[in-house]
Amino acid sequence: VIAPLRYEDGVLLVLDQTRLPAEEVWLRCATPAEVADAIARLAVRGAPAIGVAAAYGLALADAADFEAAGRLLAAARPTAVNLRWAVNQVLAAGPDAALEAARGIEQRERAATRRIAEHGATLFGSQERVLTHCNTGALATTGSGTALGVIEAAWRNGAVAQVWVGETRPLNQGSRLTAWELERVGIPFKVVTDSSAGLLMSRAVVDRVIVGADRIAANGDVANKIGTYPLAVLAHRHGIPFIVAAPTSTIDPDTPTGADIPIEERDPAEVTPHGHAAANYAFDITPAELVTAIVTEDGVIDANAGKGPDPLA
Amino acid sequence: VIAPLRYEDGVLLVLDQTRLPAEEVWLRCATPAEVADAIARLAVRGAPAIGVAAAYGLALADAADFEAAGRLLAAARPTAVNLRWAVNQVLAAGPDAALEAARGIEQRERAATRRIAEHGATLFGSQERVLTHCNTGALATTGSGTALGVIEAAWRNGAVAQVWVGETRPLNQGSRLTAWELERVGIPFKVVTDSSAGLLMSRAVVDRVIVGADRIAANGDVANKIGTYPLAVLAHRHGIPFIVAAPTSTIDPDTPTGADIPIEERDPAEVTPHGHAAANYAFDITPAELVTAIVTEDGVIDANAGKGPDPLA
Repeated sequence: VIAPLRYEDGVLLVLDQTRLPAEEVWLRCATPAEVADAIARLAVRGAPAIGVAAAYGLALADAADFEAAGRLLAAARPTAVNLRWAVNQVLAAGPDAALEAARGIEQRERAATRRIAEHGATLFGSQERVLTHCNTGALATTGSGTALGVIEAAWRNGAVAQVWVGETRPLNQGSRLTAWELERVGIPFKVVTDSSAGLLMSRAVVDRVIVGADRIAANGDVANKIGTYPLAVLAHRHGIPFIVAAPTSTIDPDTPTGADIPIEERDPAEVTPHGHAAANYAFDITPAELVTAIVTEDGVIDANAGKGPDPLA
Repeated sequence: VIAPLRYEDGVLLVLDQTRLPAEEVWLRCATPAEVADAIARLAVRGAPAIGVAAAYGLALADAADFEAAGRLLAAARPTAVNLRWAVNQVLAAGPDAALEAARGIEQRERAATRRIAEHGATLFGSQERVLTHCNTGALATTGSGTALGVIEAAWRNGAVAQVWVGETRPLNQGSRLTAWELERVGIPFKVVTDSSAGLLMSRAVVDRVIVGADRIAANGDVANKIGTYPLAVLAHRHGIPFIVAAPTSTIDPDTPTGADIPIEERDPAEVTPHGHAAANYAFDITPAELVTAIVTEDGVIDANAGKGPDPLA
């Protein structure tokens, strides 16, 4: 397993995911502000991983700056609730117990990914062709991954023949990070443009879609990487199960519906290098009705999960 | 209007669209093989434009190689039927009348785009926010464009407030070429990732989708740039009109349905620069049931067109 974060002697080492797969560069973050910056510019990304990073980031704060550091870290990115959840846990522990709390969060999230993988793998049939989006592996979670962890566990069971990896524009977390992780493990895959999903489904070469989540509202609506909602709509049309895998730390009971989830808008220059006007929304909302099942460390949510195509289709 | 092709004294000058918008480089093609190569590597692209280019390419052939040159040009790309249609027209004219036939095809296609724009503009309401995909402007047609020509005509009528331009992966015809054309004309636009369409529609900031076509089957199924089918499925879900604009040369009565249209698969390296396995399908098929109206030079096909959201929604 690749560890995207390592805490050592008062420093958080962050594997700079913006440089992968070309090179493996480790950033040394010695202050909360440096960790917040690493989160904001996606050196570390993925909802569970940024929660863990923020927790360690807060543990780097001086006691006098503890509350302010918490606010800074919680504001580094708006959509994933894990960040705020982890910061609140460490704030509650207080400055003296902050490092211990951060270690506890990391252990909890690692353990959660293992159980997510076990639960999720039970949904699979035989030799499935699975489509995924963005990166939800070890890099995104500090553990064994959410959606990608499920795929790996299912593949070890002989239940996955091939993975279709959406490149995930504009920052290519699929073609850069997921492809890199799958290649290391040896799982067969092909990268495709995000807009290939419709053709692949219409040719009946996708048996299942599985993605992660950045926040799940109380009603089951799912915020995830931009492009997730179109995949869910297409899967629904084609009667293909659409699975979301995420730790319970991603579920936000204080957010009633997807409409209440803030959608991060990032620098337009990430979309167009030509200086043209652009809009760069980083996430979209998939309504609960399009989600076949949500897999958490506590099990599979939805009585119909694993029994074939979306019962709502 | 930008002319992507210019025939001068036995040479076809081709504006190299792979180099836009960074630089305007003109290729000098003196043989059918050079034109076929320019078509295959997308120096000239867009269904109407490659038909015109192939026609002039065949006019460059020696009489002895005329038939062979026709086969070479017709095979340069498989999906757009305009290529084969144009080559067959010039083959029927024979080597002595080939140049005249090519000029006739260019004139016919230019005139068609003007009438497509006029017919299409009648569909628009007021101050619409229009989403388009790929490039369907002057660069793609040698005339005033298909879908983009409609948008321009509607904008001149005050019927378009803003254009959402899908970047169109993997080769970015939207963010490179459509953005460049819209900026030259002064039409307000924003480039977005292709997978942003779902979020934009769910936020109700898209009033209409309009795209071109590479081939329209006899039953009305539409082959167009990969990613078109997901846009049609999303538009249908959101009750947004989905319009296809293409000259009648794009309609192929010999292709019964979309399933009979060959889908070009291009070099995987276009998708991933990291050497990972990839699949690069260049087109997808939108079933006729998802198309609100088809606009050709002869008028608008579909009695319900222009009367609001897709009647089939």
